[in-house]
Amino acid sequence: MPNPTAAMLVIGDEILSGRTRDANMYHLAGRLTEHGVDLREVRVVADDRAQIVAAIKALRAAFDHLFTSGGIGPTHDDITAEAVARAFDTPIGIRDDARAILAAHYEARGQELNAARLRMARIPEGATLIDNPVSAAPGFILGNVHVMAGVPSIFEAMLASVLPTLAGGAPVLSQTWEVRRGEGDIAGPLSELAARYPDLSVGSYPFIRDGCHGAQIVLRGQDGGRLDAAMAELAELFPA
Amino acid sequence: MPNPTAAMLVIGDEILSGRTRDANMYHLAGRLTEHGVDLREVRVVADDRAQIVAAIKALRAAFDHLFTSGGIGPTHDDITAEAVARAFDTPIGIRDDARAILAAHYEARGQELNAARLRMARIPEGATLIDNPVSAAPGFILGNVHVMAGVPSIFEAMLASVLPTLAGGAPVLSQTWEVRRGEGDIAGPLSELAARYPDLSVGSYPFIRDGCHGAQIVLRGQDGGRLDAAMAELAELFPA
Repeated sequence: MPNPTAAMLVIGDEILSGRTRDANMYHLAGRLTEHGVDLREVRVVADDRAQIVAAIKALRAAFDHLFTSGGIGPTHDDITAEAVARAFDTPIGIRDDARAILAAHYEARGQELNAARLRMARIPEGATLIDNPVSAAPGFILGNVHVMAGVPSIFEAMLASVLPTLAGGAPVLSQTWEVRRGEGDIAGPLSELAARYPDLSVGSYPFIRDGCHGAQIVLRGQDGGRLDAAMAELAELFPA
Repeated sequence: MPNPTAAMLVIGDEILSGRTRDANMYHLAGRLTEHGVDLREVRVVADDRAQIVAAIKALRAAFDHLFTSGGIGPTHDDITAEAVARAFDTPIGIRDDARAILAAHYEARGQELNAARLRMARIPEGATLIDNPVSAAPGFILGNVHVMAGVPSIFEAMLASVLPTLAGGAPVLSQTWEVRRGEGDIAGPLSELAARYPDLSVGSYPFIRDGCHGAQIVLRGQDGGRLDAAMAELAELFPA
């Protein structure tokens, strides 16, 4: 059976302006691969309601799961929850259990649960909350959409609580063979090897190191024996 | 006049599997902002022809420029040039000037211009070549699509030769004010400030440092005087 598929939507002007280097995409990609879920597409969009709504609709229709990152804080530019509600054509309002979580958190710290913070209790109808062990304000799951924070430590904590609840497929195994020759030298035999192993994905990732060309040949698949066999052929084709 | 808009398409299984952390998106975002071009969307897709073609069509229609990264090398998984030709419904074949560039490069190094390397001379009809000072194999521009390599040093060199040829708008200026308080404390006054400066973009980017919440307030706009005025208000609202 093929693995479940997933997409990611990163929401935030700061990535597109070059101010911030995204960290959550790299983290999610690694965790999903370990879990046996195939990440098939990532989109990064600005804090723009129409763009967010369109991306949510397209990605949740095309893949089994959609993970979003960013835009669920208390400030005026945090519009993800509302955009998700709109994409599902579902009402959104302050939910009692989310409000209670925030109230307890801020009371324990002697801080006020003001109008801005209360925005973080706005949850689309029918959603399930995602625990936020870092700063209390919850994420949520609506249908196949997992809405999580953009701050990396919170994103990672939320993902850690969500992943075990998702059905995964066989984790994808991978092995890498480094070749210290230009890709043009190895492309022919490599293509023939890929044809002999249609059940494996054979990727070639070129690099330049100390002025010399090389490539990492990465074999991926779910059958360890087949990977070993292909690796043995690689080692014979392109001795270290 | 509003700035020209752009999108980026990152092509490569290695990003989606979590093996490689993308570097080109962050680089492109910074350079475009300096040049006065607004990066509005990024998509990352796998080495899958249908997905690449669909993304090229959608992004080049929606934005003034599209920049692609990856998939133009000599190996079997390099299918970007062909996908671009298909997206434009244009023939693709080996072009004499591209072949001559490759032939000179490999001859100077005593290497063979074999069939795999010759694939890198396949260029869609009507395209303009982009110089590759690192490893010769050219990128190309077709319509509003700029097709560049995935290896960061080559991507950066190609972008450096392309950017000066593009019309830019006014570079977006930005100033940042760091607040050592949780976003919930500042969201109300910040939202009012954003309403008083509709010509500026006011972003709030929360962080957690040494266990304490804070936020970077980033003001962006094209008028330095307005930025200074808003920064002065910020400093009064949230003293350092």
